[in-house]
Amino acid sequence: MISVQVKSVFFRFFGMMAELRPSGFPEYSPAEQLVFDQIVGIIQAQYQQFGYTHIHTPAVEKNDVLLAKNGEETGKQIFGLYGMAQGAEDLKEYGLHFDLTVPFARYTLDWEHQLTFPFKRYQIQPVWRGERAQKGRFREFFQCDIDAIWKGEKEYFYYDAEIIAVLGKTLTEVLAAVNIQDSVCFHINNKKIIRAFLQEIAGDKAQDLGNLIDKYAKIGQEKFLASLQEDFGFDTEKQQKILKFIQLSSNKIEDLDQLLFFSQNEDFLAGIAELRSVLNLIQDFQKSLGLVFHWVFDMQIIRGLDYYTGTIFEAVFENEPQLGSICGGGRYQNLTGYIDPKRNEYCGVGGSIGISRILSRVFSVQETRKQTVADYLILQFEGEMADSLVLGARFFAEGKCFEVYPYAEKLGKQFAYADKKGIPFVVIYGEGEREKGIYKLKNMQSGEEQEVPLH
Amino acid sequence: MISVQVKSVFFRFFGMMAELRPSGFPEYSPAEQLVFDQIVGIIQAQYQQFGYTHIHTPAVEKNDVLLAKNGEETGKQIFGLYGMAQGAEDLKEYGLHFDLTVPFARYTLDWEHQLTFPFKRYQIQPVWRGERAQKGRFREFFQCDIDAIWKGEKEYFYYDAEIIAVLGKTLTEVLAAVNIQDSVCFHINNKKIIRAFLQEIAGDKAQDLGNLIDKYAKIGQEKFLASLQEDFGFDTEKQQKILKFIQLSSNKIEDLDQLLFFSQNEDFLAGIAELRSVLNLIQDFQKSLGLVFHWVFDMQIIRGLDYYTGTIFEAVFENEPQLGSICGGGRYQNLTGYIDPKRNEYCGVGGSIGISRILSRVFSVQETRKQTVADYLILQFEGEMADSLVLGARFFAEGKCFEVYPYAEKLGKQFAYADKKGIPFVVIYGEGEREKGIYKLKNMQSGEEQEVPLH
Repeated sequence: MISVQVKSVFFRFFGMMAELRPSGFPEYSPAEQLVFDQIVGIIQAQYQQFGYTHIHTPAVEKNDVLLAKNGEETGKQIFGLYGMAQGAEDLKEYGLHFDLTVPFARYTLDWEHQLTFPFKRYQIQPVWRGERAQKGRFREFFQCDIDAIWKGEKEYFYYDAEIIAVLGKTLTEVLAAVNIQDSVCFHINNKKIIRAFLQEIAGDKAQDLGNLIDKYAKIGQEKFLASLQEDFGFDTEKQQKILKFIQLSSNKIEDLDQLLFFSQNEDFLAGIAELRSVLNLIQDFQKSLGLVFHWVFDMQIIRGLDYYTGTIFEAVFENEPQLGSICGGGRYQNLTGYIDPKRNEYCGVGGSIGISRILSRVFSVQETRKQTVADYLILQFEGEMADSLVLGARFFAEGKCFEVYPYAEKLGKQFAYADKKGIPFVVIYGEGEREKGIYKLKNMQSGEEQEVPLH
Repeated sequence: MISVQVKSVFFRFFGMMAELRPSGFPEYSPAEQLVFDQIVGIIQAQYQQFGYTHIHTPAVEKNDVLLAKNGEETGKQIFGLYGMAQGAEDLKEYGLHFDLTVPFARYTLDWEHQLTFPFKRYQIQPVWRGERAQKGRFREFFQCDIDAIWKGEKEYFYYDAEIIAVLGKTLTEVLAAVNIQDSVCFHINNKKIIRAFLQEIAGDKAQDLGNLIDKYAKIGQEKFLASLQEDFGFDTEKQQKILKFIQLSSNKIEDLDQLLFFSQNEDFLAGIAELRSVLNLIQDFQKSLGLVFHWVFDMQIIRGLDYYTGTIFEAVFENEPQLGSICGGGRYQNLTGYIDPKRNEYCGVGGSIGISRILSRVFSVQETRKQTVADYLILQFEGEMADSLVLGARFFAEGKCFEVYPYAEKLGKQFAYADKKGIPFVVIYGEGEREKGIYKLKNMQSGEEQEVPLH
């Protein structure tokens, strides 16, 4: 039998020209959707177990909210809306959200009198980017965000650790559920360390140097050093200092001491202290709850220079880091001030799992999959619909998922239906079985038949 | 303590002018969202138990797909998209889906080689209408669709009954879960009966008469008869015949015989036979599975004249029918032909639950609600973070949802947090408890404290 995976590739290729779906908007076959739902179910359950509560925001926000921060840059990504109808002129002020952070900030302001702080929320929704569709860059994709926010700048390093612990636990559970033999590694850093180091070494060019370090893994050491010389005019000593700095990475907290050789700047030292506190708490979490994900502190983790203010992190598959980050986040001092400068009191820490990279890994290794959640197909015999239902009632009462074949079609066709859908058991209750007071349960994989007494 | 409900109304009123959310796009407080999720969870579980599989389609479809049927009429409802970015010119050919049937039809064509027919799918997503926002008319709302489709026109009345049985079971479960003391009544009809009757009695004006009957409940008998006379020129005898016909409604299958006095038209009789088969099967379902929802056949059920071809149905709350239909659907002979006239072989039967009307009923009676799924809050004492986590591990291992307060704040503040969020139990593990080798479990509702030994 041709595997679902191969079929999928075949028909996707063949069907490509005729596809009616808009470009850049992925969707899944029923079998793939089951895996997607399984993963989302795990993410939800894990987020909830740690007391994070679900919020859901509309797909649409006002453009002045969406564009409040980095308007020009962000505007390039936004899907604007217009009403084909007359009389809906306000629509042109609306657009689809491009992330879940801006809607979360807007939600916080709209509902602040009903929220209890610290407020722990998760949000799993698609986001949209109105850009040209490219390979691997989608116009619609799901984000699974988790954040804890509070009023005023408080330390609450507990949450930095909790967010990473929850995400680590969640990703570990996901990998186990979909049979990926790999583990997740969090690369953790602190923005204060990075910002102070960049500032001290590059002054006005701090941001440019940050961007270059961000590209280090992609361009490699040689090009990196060349750029430090040519674009920044750094001498060999400075080049080596930067190189050594960004190569600092370890899973031992005491190795943080090596950072002390690079700067004595106050913010730099404060960043190290914060990072130490957070890593210690993560260890507490791991020990207490038996969490097995890995972490290193890593000076190459930079992330959006203008948003995060403390802890920053990214997670990758340990055996397949080249797939890129599957999770990231950090701590921020100002969630809502961009939308309304008078209301800049909300700070927090959060992260997000990008489910499509995980799915692409799953679909590259899994071969055949069930197309339905049903575990039983009750065959249909001429004139015995009511009997089938009485039998179905047994499975129903036990909370099992079942299907009844809708028509007394040839048995071969009914078996083929169960086979194609990957339904594991077929229930046979024809005239012979009724006379014997039994029904037969056929295991579709092994072919074994079992007689089950009716009473 | 002011109830959440009253707060909600208060702050909604007060916050109205300042609201940042776009008009016509509802969203929920965390407490309301929990109820929403509970209901969606029940709907999913029920749909799945009967073997319906989940599909999810993008928010966006091509305009020529969206407008394939009733383009002019539909176009008035659609949110069109444009890219604020340059270089994404194809975006203007795209719009947001306004229902889940058109995307389902498109999905069927795009994936037909991977689907197994009969194909049983459910789909729970928001839909968007680009119209002027009005009271009770939203621009974004959720639909919970369920359909079984197959190739070619087959009878498969099993599915007409199964869809109604699943929807009836689902709504019954939903009402029980949210403590609404009411039941659901399905009003069932057959399009062949209606179409033949209207045609025979009104000829060219069949559609107009159908529209008038659709309004009967709203306008009342007097206006209805006046319109029959003035707009259709029907004599008293014809008026009385129509009136008697649309007043036919019963929960006894044998009462279908009364229809035989109204016409001997072949299609009319075929419709009665179909309706009889379906009602018999629904009774089989109810008996076998112990389903308690109610139904009547009802000649006032008309539904979209141009789409449904056999069974049609609508469900209302039995004690609050004026809230309008909370569920509806029917059988159709042509799912996909509108999109591609050469591919008109898919027929089926389906229905949809409108969750916002159910929620409006729930929120009008429920007063206070939990803001989180967490059942336990572990208090935080100075310097004992690791201890709190070790304690958390116990709840964690049992799969319970818990929160740890992030900071050793005053105990009053920590209790207030649990109280506001509606967390039922607080876990106290301070110095005194540690010395005694216990922790205390405080019931936040009764105030009772229980000592639990650590070992």
